[in-house]
Amino acid sequence: MNKIMSDKIVYITRKESLCIAHKLYNHELSHEENLAIYDKCTNCHGHNFNLYVTVKAPIDPLTGMVMNFKELKRIVRENVYDIMDHKYLNEDVEEFKTLMPTAENVAYVIWQWLSPKIKGLYEVKLEETDNNSTIYRGE
Amino acid sequence: MNKIMSDKIVYITRKESLCIAHKLYNHELSHEENLAIYDKCTNCHGHNFNLYVTVKAPIDPLTGMVMNFKELKRIVRENVYDIMDHKYLNEDVEEFKTLMPTAENVAYVIWQWLSPKIKGLYEVKLEETDNNSTIYRGE
Amino acid sequence: MNKIMSDKIVYITRKESLCIAHKLYNHELSHEENLAIYDKCTNCHGHNFNLYVTVKAPIDPLTGMVMNFKELKRIVRENVYDIMDHKYLNEDVEEFKTLMPTAENVAYVIWQWLSPKIKGLYEVKLEETDNNSTIYRGE
Amino acid sequence: MNKIMSDKIVYITRKESLCIAHKLYNHELSHEENLAIYDKCTNCHGHNFNLYVTVKAPIDPLTGMVMNFKELKRIVRENVYDIMDHKYLNEDVEEFKTLMPTAENVAYVIWQWLSPKIKGLYEVKLEETDNNSTIYRGE
Amino acid sequence: MNKIMSDKIVYITRKESLCIAHKLYNHELSHEENLAIYDKCTNCHGHNFNLYVTVKAPIDPLTGMVMNFKELKRIVRENVYDIMDHKYLNEDVEEFKTLMPTAENVAYVIWQWLSPKIKGLYEVKLEETDNNSTIYRGE
Amino acid sequence: MNKIMSDKIVYITRKESLCIAHKLYNHELSHEENLAIYDKCTNCHGHNFNLYVTVKAPIDPLTGMVMNFKELKRIVRENVYDIMDHKYLNEDVEEFKTLMPTAENVAYVIWQWLSPKIKGLYEVKLEETDNNSTIYRGE
Repeated sequence: MNKIMSDKIVYITRKESLCIAHKLYNHELSHEENLAIYDKCTNCHGHNFNLYVTVKAPIDPLTGMVMNFKELKRIVRENVYDIMDHKYLNEDVEEFKTLMPTAENVAYVIWQWLSPKIKGLYEVKLEETDNNSTIYRGE
Repeated sequence: MNKIMSDKIVYITRKESLCIAHKLYNHELSHEENLAIYDKCTNCHGHNFNLYVTVKAPIDPLTGMVMNFKELKRIVRENVYDIMDHKYLNEDVEEFKTLMPTAENVAYVIWQWLSPKIKGLYEVKLEETDNNSTIYRGE
Repeated sequence: MNKIMSDKIVYITRKESLCIAHKLYNHELSHEENLAIYDKCTNCHGHNFNLYVTVKAPIDPLTGMVMNFKELKRIVRENVYDIMDHKYLNEDVEEFKTLMPTAENVAYVIWQWLSPKIKGLYEVKLEETDNNSTIYRGE
Repeated sequence: MNKIMSDKIVYITRKESLCIAHKLYNHELSHEENLAIYDKCTNCHGHNFNLYVTVKAPIDPLTGMVMNFKELKRIVRENVYDIMDHKYLNEDVEEFKTLMPTAENVAYVIWQWLSPKIKGLYEVKLEETDNNSTIYRGE
Repeated sequence: MNKIMSDKIVYITRKESLCIAHKLYNHELSHEENLAIYDKCTNCHGHNFNLYVTVKAPIDPLTGMVMNFKELKRIVRENVYDIMDHKYLNEDVEEFKTLMPTAENVAYVIWQWLSPKIKGLYEVKLEETDNNSTIYRGE
Repeated sequence: MNKIMSDKIVYITRKESLCIAHKLYNHELSHEENLAIYDKCTNCHGHNFNLYVTVKAPIDPLTGMVMNFKELKRIVRENVYDIMDHKYLNEDVEEFKTLMPTAENVAYVIWQWLSPKIKGLYEVKLEETDNNSTIYRGE
């Protein structure tokens, strides 16, 4: 019954919120250097990270959807949320035992996790606080 | 009195909020297929859709504006808001009697309505909920 | 190991978001009277209603909690969310087949549903749009 | 020059945002009991806690203020923010070495810290996530 | 057709946003005293004030409403918004030529304007920034 | 200890909020023309402008950062915030004595101030109200 356009490129974004602890401390640097660079972030502390995952793809003529939001939610839940939510990144998440969990690196790692699972993955945005956010687009 | 730059490209965005009911049900599919794809959205339900319309154009040397926000508001009100606000898309809006009112298609239709009226239309963004949003840029 | 205060009264609030359609039309009034009172709301339309349920009770000395947020979430999900989310109130929810689904009445009905299930229920707040909200406190 | 009312009671509220890690684990209970009660919160994790401190007092006829917002900010910074921001409550903050750092208890402890410093302290509100918040009013 | 409760007390709140300039400077004080108290606010500056007007009253059995939101909007527009929006309080609004336009006093003045017009006026809340807000309840 | 990626391009954004007064009035135009174009904005009025400054650059292998958020904050504070916050643009800020302080021009001027100080400056976004915003990207 429905006429549905194809060949139209649309971006869809799914938001998840994750309650995470981390600290920023580089053991290759001196304590003074760490304080100079990371300041209070050298302590274990935490954030409600808002994660926005964006997919860019044509509208499916059958469903009128770029990708089912339910399916996007499931993929983000299984591949990101279940691994990082309510965790202490430096100790509980394999990647961040050896990689500094700055917001930049966290956005990059999430992209690495999601890009094999999501065709048309366009952007991973991570809001660390109301004032600070980062974006990775696979560049 | 005012020195005003020209040739500077600026993006301006106007937000409107629309209170809309819709349901997602494709009569070419079986009831089971509809439930599998659209789940709870097969019921008539509703959202406060936040609509963001972005125009990309040079600053006008006379006014210091890309486009008068008042005029942008008027165009969005007349061509989108007055047609869709406080309506049931599937029954009250001509386009969605035959086109599935997914957020993707709604963003696309709004673009179709606005692009003949707004020179430099750049993006139509539609937030359906705090967690789900879509963007169409005429691609 | 933990010293925990009792006898301290704390308020906790859980938010849920519900995607609902409704219309405001009183069949005991004329069409003109309905338009005069309810205006565009006489059409089927919808909102993302933000529901805030507040409980007022002493802190439990064992858990450090007024009430487990998980349990509060479960009760609100089972007794409100599952009944009203992604529904058309006037047709799909028993109470609103005969009761006008104004935000005031919806807040009142939610209180009626929750008060037998939640000891210390203090307030039901319902945001219909960014501009309009209602509160019922059992008065 | 200014006529200023006295005897008028006004409430003023100051917001601060704090980036905190904590975990909920009661060593007097078994591991299974902890999981049953605190679930994922038994892991070290974190939040951007939004803290709202409200003072209720008459308007000062000289200044037109209930209390100088600058002074309220200074007191909250010195007595709360500097102690808890970018910290792991269970290890870095004395009170929470023996008291479970639930949102309820954190709100209570902040009240204990602020009430000797702020005449007319009325309410301490703590938003842990977009969905969960607590209030303590000294009751 | 609709059964509608009476005798149920509900609170409704209407939000308006106002774009206002003001400065805080008391000519009865020295310049140094003004700087000590009002700091940067001694300069003409501005805010998007969010105004929340709350009415507490029983639900009307005919309409299912405490008060028509349309009517509440009209009263707030005519008696507050049209007088203060896009104005410089100290020069353009009569009351603030002689009364210090602190957020506390602005909330008080709005109450004075609205209380003769709105039966059951319960609260005037004014958010000056994301961090600072005031409430007046006629006390 | 940390493996850190280089050559990965990430965007970081820092938000500041500024309390500013301005008016839009072009003395080369008649009073009627000014009213027709700028309407209520011809009066001195104000906003909480939300400023978002975005930097696009590779992740630094030493720090795991695109740029230290502390340093970005310092640059925005010294070069924008300290000049414009709690000011009346038309009278207190040199650039706007001769340039119309529309949101478009303000975004452009902030870019001019910041681009010599920030390598990889990508975007200046300015939210004037919840409904109106502008972006300048150096085009």
